[in-house]
Amino acid sequence: MLPVTAALADLSAADLEAFLAKTRADLDAFKARGLKLDMTRGKPSPEQLVFAEGMLALPGNRDHTSEANEDARNYGNLQGLAETRKLFAGTMGAPAERVVVGGNASLAMMHDVIVWALLKGVPGSARPWSKEEEIVFLCPAPGYDRHFAICEEFGIRMIPVRLTGEGPDMDQVEELVRDPAVKGMWCVPKYSNPTAETYSDETVRRLAKMETAAPDFRLFWDNAYAVHHLTDAKAEILNILDECAAAGHPDRAFVFASTSKMTVAGAGLAFFASSEANVKWQQARAGKQTIGPDKLNQLRHVRFLKDEAGLAAHMDKHRGSLAPKFKAVTDALQARLGGLGAATWITPAGGYFVSVDLAPGAASRTVALAKEAGLALTPAGATYPYGKDPQDSNLRLAPSFPTLADVKVASEIIAVCMALACAEAEEARRKKAAA
Amino acid sequence: MLPVTAALADLSAADLEAFLAKTRADLDAFKARGLKLDMTRGKPSPEQLVFAEGMLALPGNRDHTSEANEDARNYGNLQGLAETRKLFAGTMGAPAERVVVGGNASLAMMHDVIVWALLKGVPGSARPWSKEEEIVFLCPAPGYDRHFAICEEFGIRMIPVRLTGEGPDMDQVEELVRDPAVKGMWCVPKYSNPTAETYSDETVRRLAKMETAAPDFRLFWDNAYAVHHLTDAKAEILNILDECAAAGHPDRAFVFASTSKMTVAGAGLAFFASSEANVKWQQARAGKQTIGPDKLNQLRHVRFLKDEAGLAAHMDKHRGSLAPKFKAVTDALQARLGGLGAATWITPAGGYFVSVDLAPGAASRTVALAKEAGLALTPAGATYPYGKDPQDSNLRLAPSFPTLADVKVASEIIAVCMALACAEAEEARRKKAAA
Repeated sequence: MLPVTAALADLSAADLEAFLAKTRADLDAFKARGLKLDMTRGKPSPEQLVFAEGMLALPGNRDHTSEANEDARNYGNLQGLAETRKLFAGTMGAPAERVVVGGNASLAMMHDVIVWALLKGVPGSARPWSKEEEIVFLCPAPGYDRHFAICEEFGIRMIPVRLTGEGPDMDQVEELVRDPAVKGMWCVPKYSNPTAETYSDETVRRLAKMETAAPDFRLFWDNAYAVHHLTDAKAEILNILDECAAAGHPDRAFVFASTSKMTVAGAGLAFFASSEANVKWQQARAGKQTIGPDKLNQLRHVRFLKDEAGLAAHMDKHRGSLAPKFKAVTDALQARLGGLGAATWITPAGGYFVSVDLAPGAASRTVALAKEAGLALTPAGATYPYGKDPQDSNLRLAPSFPTLADVKVASEIIAVCMALACAEAEEARRKKAAA
Repeated sequence: MLPVTAALADLSAADLEAFLAKTRADLDAFKARGLKLDMTRGKPSPEQLVFAEGMLALPGNRDHTSEANEDARNYGNLQGLAETRKLFAGTMGAPAERVVVGGNASLAMMHDVIVWALLKGVPGSARPWSKEEEIVFLCPAPGYDRHFAICEEFGIRMIPVRLTGEGPDMDQVEELVRDPAVKGMWCVPKYSNPTAETYSDETVRRLAKMETAAPDFRLFWDNAYAVHHLTDAKAEILNILDECAAAGHPDRAFVFASTSKMTVAGAGLAFFASSEANVKWQQARAGKQTIGPDKLNQLRHVRFLKDEAGLAAHMDKHRGSLAPKFKAVTDALQARLGGLGAATWITPAGGYFVSVDLAPGAASRTVALAKEAGLALTPAGATYPYGKDPQDSNLRLAPSFPTLADVKVASEIIAVCMALACAEAEEARRKKAAA
């Protein structure tokens, strides 16, 4: 690699040419290896799934009775077993009485709450949301593509909101919620997907306090990475339910989480927590949908994790597997892009993604270059509403699933492709300026 | 008990008085025992749940790989494991390619399909159902209260349809579907909840063939008791999907079932099957709701039941537990009500309920009398749209959950209460006629 001592923008024409040539040669070397690598999705690896191997034989014969002496095999208990709700009350930031256990997907709980809001309205709604002229959601972007897909499915207009490194740009948010059509906002408050940023106390307080024109405005608070730390600096966020209650907006937040990235990705538990009124509303709707959730899986989780200390110890195993992969990514980025002045990223302290901002136009070019080298990346724009990154500048990297060895190689390829795409962009910029 | 040799209507005034007195005395004897019995819901008993005890330790350590070499622990496979779909293809009456595995509740799959129909429309819809002036569902009644509760939740108007003993009155149905507002119809085609009747071939054919004014009319075909036989005469119904396709209405039927009353009531698998277009539509919608179902539970079911023969053998165990309970009910009804000419019922050959038609007004009176004797029955009217039985004449008995000994006592109490209620109704009828 060339020793990069200056930003791309400061290189002489000759040095930029040399940089391009060397970087292309490095990429060609990777292409020659005929690799087939995939960094597209935030899936736990087989190594991580083994941590929950013991669950596959649980709860075990004759173990099907809850603390309240319910038969966990039979129908009923719409809200979920008390011991399961208690185990995750801390994660959800609500007392067990205001925690609901769902199926295996928190996404389904979010989808269903939106569907019910559209068809029935939420507490405080004047009418079902589908009877409004237009429904708008605020979407901090880049964000989680599956959140945005729900909005698109149901014709909810999405407005992207800038992220600051401490959560959404609150000046922008406070301005936007003055429109009564704005009924909701997606938030991944801790180790955000994909930027890895954590909402500051100031951000959380402003979200709780702000005046919204819609009296039935809701924060969709997807705390997906609540306990998914990668360092000793375990991020804590303010309790959104408490902050909303203190600010006189007790029903503002719907809180979601799941154990998908704690225990078994496809066979975990999803959770919902909120105010008493919201939980009552959710349970009334859910009671029309099902007789009750899978309580054996709830018992399985309690038997396996035991308590909050057990959960924390289990999450440390994930950290042990994930942290070296994340380090491989950021080391490669730093080594190849550190001085170029063309790429920025947050070194994740938790979560599942590394998000990189590049020169405008360089994101889709990087994906195309990586594909040539046998590496599949999340498509550029995928993390934006309607799949459109207006700058074509952001890429989401998902290093969890491949082996550490593969992540190392993939990260080098990514960094090379990014460097090349950014240098090409710089070259194009100069040509355009000269023309 | 009085030897009843004549119908209540034919008894002399004195004999009716004597019958009332004796029946009241019999009821008082039960009251004196201070019993506490419950026959309200169609839940499997602990004895039945033990049949699936082996599942509680499945799939077991290191068993998490599907036939297609998927990791059943991880995310993905929205439609469900091929081996699970294959195992239940016969039950669903569709090739595995057109079977979808859901969560633990077929009710949720029905609810979700209706929600998506309301917000998006189904294949063939001119617009989302919620944009129509009015949506109407036909509801063979008595029927399943939770079906009707979904309609009520979303403001779908329900029209009750008479049952004939071979399914719904098709003359009435064919007339009603000439209204384009009629978009759907609930059907429990085998061992119907609660009448235990099975749709005749003629009924199925007419449902498949009839001309509906709504081009996007759907049969919600809840084959909840597909393999839930109580006798050797295992009922077979015509394949609704095939009949609809042959009649030129390939997209007419949505088929649902679950293993809730096969394996574990609260932790079973739900299934959906339909035409290629409908399955594609359902999967497109479900793909916005979830990344995929709990495939470990799918593997658990395959490991436990193995194949269709294994499923049939397993269902025979249920029959062994349930058949004596059903016999206790119908024996008691026959013994006490057989000659009265005031009560009719179908002796169930499968399913979970005994449905009894009494003299008008006698249903709620029976429930009140039973309550006095410490026996909880499903509220009168519960099995009708809006909870209103216009005749107040039908009762649903659910003998599965209590022990056989309790079912025997409960059945005698029920028969006594019914006899008393019917005799009181006869007495009232005579007083009214005389006035």
